[in-house]
Amino acid sequence: MKVHVPKKTLADTLAHVERIIPNRSSNPGLSLLRVDLNPDGIVLSGSNMDIDICARFAADVQGEGAYALPAHVFSQVVRSLPGDLVEFDFTDNELEISSDTFATRLQLTSPTSAPDLVFPTEFAGSLDAAALERALTSVRYAAAVADYQAVFRGVKVELKDGKTRVVATDGFRLAYYDLELSSGFERDIIVPARSVEELTRMLSGGDARLHLADGQLSVANGAIVVNLKLMEGSFPDYERVIPKNFPVSATFAAKALSDAVSRVAVMADKTANNRVDMFIKDGTLQIMAEGGYGRAQEALAVLQEGPDPEIALAYNARYLMDALGPVSGDVRLSFSGTSSAPSVVVDMNDPCYLAMVVPLRTG
Amino acid sequence: MKVHVPKKTLADTLAHVERIIPNRSSNPGLSLLRVDLNPDGIVLSGSNMDIDICARFAADVQGEGAYALPAHVFSQVVRSLPGDLVEFDFTDNELEISSDTFATRLQLTSPTSAPDLVFPTEFAGSLDAAALERALTSVRYAAAVADYQAVFRGVKVELKDGKTRVVATDGFRLAYYDLELSSGFERDIIVPARSVEELTRMLSGGDARLHLADGQLSVANGAIVVNLKLMEGSFPDYERVIPKNFPVSATFAAKALSDAVSRVAVMADKTANNRVDMFIKDGTLQIMAEGGYGRAQEALAVLQEGPDPEIALAYNARYLMDALGPVSGDVRLSFSGTSSAPSVVVDMNDPCYLAMVVPLRTG
Repeated sequence: MKVHVPKKTLADTLAHVERIIPNRSSNPGLSLLRVDLNPDGIVLSGSNMDIDICARFAADVQGEGAYALPAHVFSQVVRSLPGDLVEFDFTDNELEISSDTFATRLQLTSPTSAPDLVFPTEFAGSLDAAALERALTSVRYAAAVADYQAVFRGVKVELKDGKTRVVATDGFRLAYYDLELSSGFERDIIVPARSVEELTRMLSGGDARLHLADGQLSVANGAIVVNLKLMEGSFPDYERVIPKNFPVSATFAAKALSDAVSRVAVMADKTANNRVDMFIKDGTLQIMAEGGYGRAQEALAVLQEGPDPEIALAYNARYLMDALGPVSGDVRLSFSGTSSAPSVVVDMNDPCYLAMVVPLRTG
Repeated sequence: MKVHVPKKTLADTLAHVERIIPNRSSNPGLSLLRVDLNPDGIVLSGSNMDIDICARFAADVQGEGAYALPAHVFSQVVRSLPGDLVEFDFTDNELEISSDTFATRLQLTSPTSAPDLVFPTEFAGSLDAAALERALTSVRYAAAVADYQAVFRGVKVELKDGKTRVVATDGFRLAYYDLELSSGFERDIIVPARSVEELTRMLSGGDARLHLADGQLSVANGAIVVNLKLMEGSFPDYERVIPKNFPVSATFAAKALSDAVSRVAVMADKTANNRVDMFIKDGTLQIMAEGGYGRAQEALAVLQEGPDPEIALAYNARYLMDALGPVSGDVRLSFSGTSSAPSVVVDMNDPCYLAMVVPLRTG
């Protein structure tokens, strides 16, 4: 069966699907790309067990058929094709790919060797894709990477009437982002942080249509549909640990603080939580670090508020910089009175974002 | 002692020296940067045993002094400095670095802990730096990376009256580049390929002044001087293995061939020398590869010459692409009659470059 497709359309679509499919796997079927042909066009699909993905594009196809082939070899061939137009010729066990002066014959596998994937066709809910991407990107950093309770490696999505909140925490820091948007669902789910990262890469504007079922969230955006396996377990009751009263607050440009912390942290002791000390008094924030190579300090003028005249706390420099990352303008950092109570970061131009960082114990 | 320097001058100079100094070493002195102050300015120096480097820049210095400090921590601090101007204050055991609102105290070590380096002040020879860079960059790829006789990991520099040739070979391929330039020396030397790579990065136009002594080549260019340790051993007598007669030659655009080989090689068997087969007949070059995933082929129209009507040979695709790399325009590939005799690549627009590739044994 012959199919003609523009190289760019094919390469762009394939790039999304290829990202998900493992290059090597103990289950060889997982490294296969499934190709479905029908009169509307071509559907490419694959899975890494946590994420299933399918992407479709229009093409001139005479007939129907299903095939499987090694995803990464196919992608390498497609990326290197010389012409603008690609001709496929599918036979039972070979795919001939021709483009300009170049031709390849790639061995095909039975489509039953590839993972058996089912994607929803109806989507009961939806959210604005750009807003969802901004929310997820803003909190992703706060999830744990490893060696923690499983739920800490997930991002909680709270779907409520008129409001959607995404939250991540590793127990030492937390970030949430509120969207004043209804998804059409009323439920809390936990999505693995790695799946969240892949989801944010594929969201491309317009509507992100949502389907919830059987431990799985499906998202359709543009020509792509993904199934994200959800995590089990109960997310910590984080709201009660966010402090409400702060003896000292300071407002300043997020980038200026982040740059200063980054400079001072060069001298911080990497084996002692990358510790930087902060001291606020008389409208000045002093940042200090000390380690084996020497010590560094920097002072920033800040807008100081709150009942107490001064405060001293210590932080992991990395955590502080991560919390400031999503803020492009001014930020307010609010300090609790004791070294065990968390500090809170809010974006002065975007009240949807809140981050919390637990200080390091001092003394 | 206080010193003021523009941040950019300092950072640019330091970047060259830092590249050479090892981050971690079993000899802790090797990771130190030596800083010499004199009324003319600042001299930074360091070594990785194979390469010594020193770089100087003008600065307003009151007095003289010599210090040593951890190179990579110092570089990290300098890169992150907020202001355009940097103030150094050297005391016996501490360096205070201030810039804008930021200040660091870095512990100093005795300069006797750093490597004891001597750089020449007189240079008897010289070569055009841009020409030398082009020559070295064109042949570097042909040197062996490991697991070979030591001289194969070096680049031979033949210094003769009126002519300078650089050559590299790993026994399976070879490249040379001729400069019709006198260096002022008459001698053959072998420079480790890694040192050649560092040298090409630091060459910045103008004259590369040369000094030869005691198993060491010193090169001065701009504000930088390097000592490159030379290799012992005798380089193979390569000229006698370069064939002179070719039953078939083909002329074509180097990039078109390189792209075609790269595409076809996707299907090549990586465990069988990445083999691609070439067949020339009737002014057409066929490139083919076959492996576990399938087969690929591509045809290119070429200008065919030579007494024989056709020829078939096989190559390691990587070797062929490397040999074509330095050629920007047309290239002539000349084939020997047997699969064990090398093929020769010449640049049609730059007769200074010649590469040789030994075909894979077939049949």
